[in-house]
Amino acid sequence: MIKNDLFLKALKGQTVTRPPVWMMRQAGRYLPDFMRLKAQYDFFTRCQTPELAAEITVMPIDQIGTDAAILFSDILVVLQAMDIPVEMKSDVGPWIPNPIATAKDVDRVLVPDVEDRLNYVLQAIIQSKGLLDNRVPLIGFAGSPWTLLCYAVQGSGSKTFDKAKAFCFSQPELAHRLLQKITDTTIAYLKAKVATGVDAVQLFDSWGGLLGPDDYQTFSWQYLQQIVTALRTEIPVIVFGKGCWFALREMSQSGAAALGIDWTCSAQNARYLSGGAITLQGNYDPAKLLSPTSQIRTDVHQMINAFGKDRYIVNLGHGILPNIPVAHAQAFVDAVKEYY
Amino acid sequence: MIKNDLFLKALKGQTVTRPPVWMMRQAGRYLPDFMRLKAQYDFFTRCQTPELAAEITVMPIDQIGTDAAILFSDILVVLQAMDIPVEMKSDVGPWIPNPIATAKDVDRVLVPDVEDRLNYVLQAIIQSKGLLDNRVPLIGFAGSPWTLLCYAVQGSGSKTFDKAKAFCFSQPELAHRLLQKITDTTIAYLKAKVATGVDAVQLFDSWGGLLGPDDYQTFSWQYLQQIVTALRTEIPVIVFGKGCWFALREMSQSGAAALGIDWTCSAQNARYLSGGAITLQGNYDPAKLLSPTSQIRTDVHQMINAFGKDRYIVNLGHGILPNIPVAHAQAFVDAVKEYY
Repeated sequence: MIKNDLFLKALKGQTVTRPPVWMMRQAGRYLPDFMRLKAQYDFFTRCQTPELAAEITVMPIDQIGTDAAILFSDILVVLQAMDIPVEMKSDVGPWIPNPIATAKDVDRVLVPDVEDRLNYVLQAIIQSKGLLDNRVPLIGFAGSPWTLLCYAVQGSGSKTFDKAKAFCFSQPELAHRLLQKITDTTIAYLKAKVATGVDAVQLFDSWGGLLGPDDYQTFSWQYLQQIVTALRTEIPVIVFGKGCWFALREMSQSGAAALGIDWTCSAQNARYLSGGAITLQGNYDPAKLLSPTSQIRTDVHQMINAFGKDRYIVNLGHGILPNIPVAHAQAFVDAVKEYY
Repeated sequence: MIKNDLFLKALKGQTVTRPPVWMMRQAGRYLPDFMRLKAQYDFFTRCQTPELAAEITVMPIDQIGTDAAILFSDILVVLQAMDIPVEMKSDVGPWIPNPIATAKDVDRVLVPDVEDRLNYVLQAIIQSKGLLDNRVPLIGFAGSPWTLLCYAVQGSGSKTFDKAKAFCFSQPELAHRLLQKITDTTIAYLKAKVATGVDAVQLFDSWGGLLGPDDYQTFSWQYLQQIVTALRTEIPVIVFGKGCWFALREMSQSGAAALGIDWTCSAQNARYLSGGAITLQGNYDPAKLLSPTSQIRTDVHQMINAFGKDRYIVNLGHGILPNIPVAHAQAFVDAVKEYY
């Protein structure tokens, strides 16, 4: 039914002629048409207006030719739906006016009816599917409970998320209550996305790598595992834990269909640490898209050779940067399509 | 000659009754006496005034009882000596008014006479040795060339140091010329420190973990190796690459006396990746010093059991945070001293 099913084949571990390619944040600030919409509408307006979200979602399909679309949205819409207001401040990034700190704060956090509170996301899926017209699969996503806790407690982005970690280490029972609420919401949210028609889901644990291996199990992985377990029979689940090389073994045994890899973990290490059988996705250093396009092409072919063409999805090791020339993103995608 | 030589014994791989302990940034903002001096003198005045630097250096020895002192200074004084001005802005951190961007900029960078330009550091060593009176060893340090390039090019601290990476990936010849200038300066600087009396040196590659394994070799490790090679016959060298688990094997074969480990790399992984024979130093998550003191004590004993008491130096996995209660830092150090 989906014309270009390379991505879905790779998730199933099937043999392909070449690996599929998409880029995290591919519907983003490096695209002139995205910047045009950004000038007209603020961040959460773009997320909350299905027409806009859908228009942005399909941009990289039309303009760069990636093999999968990922719904334009943000991991923080889940916090908003849980009655934790989030604003997006220019130059600052995410801003939570009333960060979680006390038992009362955690009690007040809502486990919402996601079909109501996040209905605009479901509408954006429907509209995106319409615009995609079965050309490529559509990926839905959510942040990991730990990563969402980081923002909810810290109150903003941070290099170290010290406040969030202090919260977990000094009030672990509270942290676990909050994490479970986020987990329950996320499972309902992703199930609604699946019911509305996404073809795969990706879980982003952007700040998992700030925890040591034992704390990662305690404060992040056990909740991610709950989500994978709840979704895995319905849809392929991709888990991307940035900096989480130390947890690849557990992740590979979780029932996830694929694991995202960042650029600090070589293909060889990633295959070894994940047991060698699971589909891997990654891992070009986003900053290397500033290299000359001839270098990008060479790098991409080397990367495919290193990971192997099967059980592999070409991607960046994190989101594409705003200052990447479109021609360089295009060179990255084209290099994959040239591979044989 | 040095009364408490546990730290030097551990660096030599000798058997000890208990491992030595010190903390990165142990002479820092968690100490009320440090805050008193901070209120009176700005950051670089404290670095550049030997009496103040020495007073700060010995504070944790007198007040917390660590087994080694580390000279109070900053990795960025090397850039200043190379005619790259650096300011310290409150709330912003390091600030380079004229970041390096062009060939002309790199040409202008000075490889200075360190005995002249960094004489105040050498005076601070002499004064620190006086105040220490051979109670514990004194550690000198420097930043890695890559980490210094990050600041020199980016112009400030950053989560991703995109500009610095873009500089390396788009103008590699320029990057290598700058890295070599920093390397030559650093070798002369550390040799001067050794001649003045430090008992060990540590190299901080704080941003090495932002590079993939191949780029790490190209833009960071080859320069660190030059420094280790130049110093290793004169003094024990500790290499700490934050996030550089993927390079522990090369590091272990470099001639370094010990390797610093961050908290994302378990003791087991660190021993395995470093080949099992070299002294390791680390790796308590600095944020975990906010745990109850009873928990800190348990954690420290588990950490020593995991690393083993020999060929091991207890430390944090990165610098101590400003908001750590002194009693918690004390509990960390005391837990090591109680170990038997």
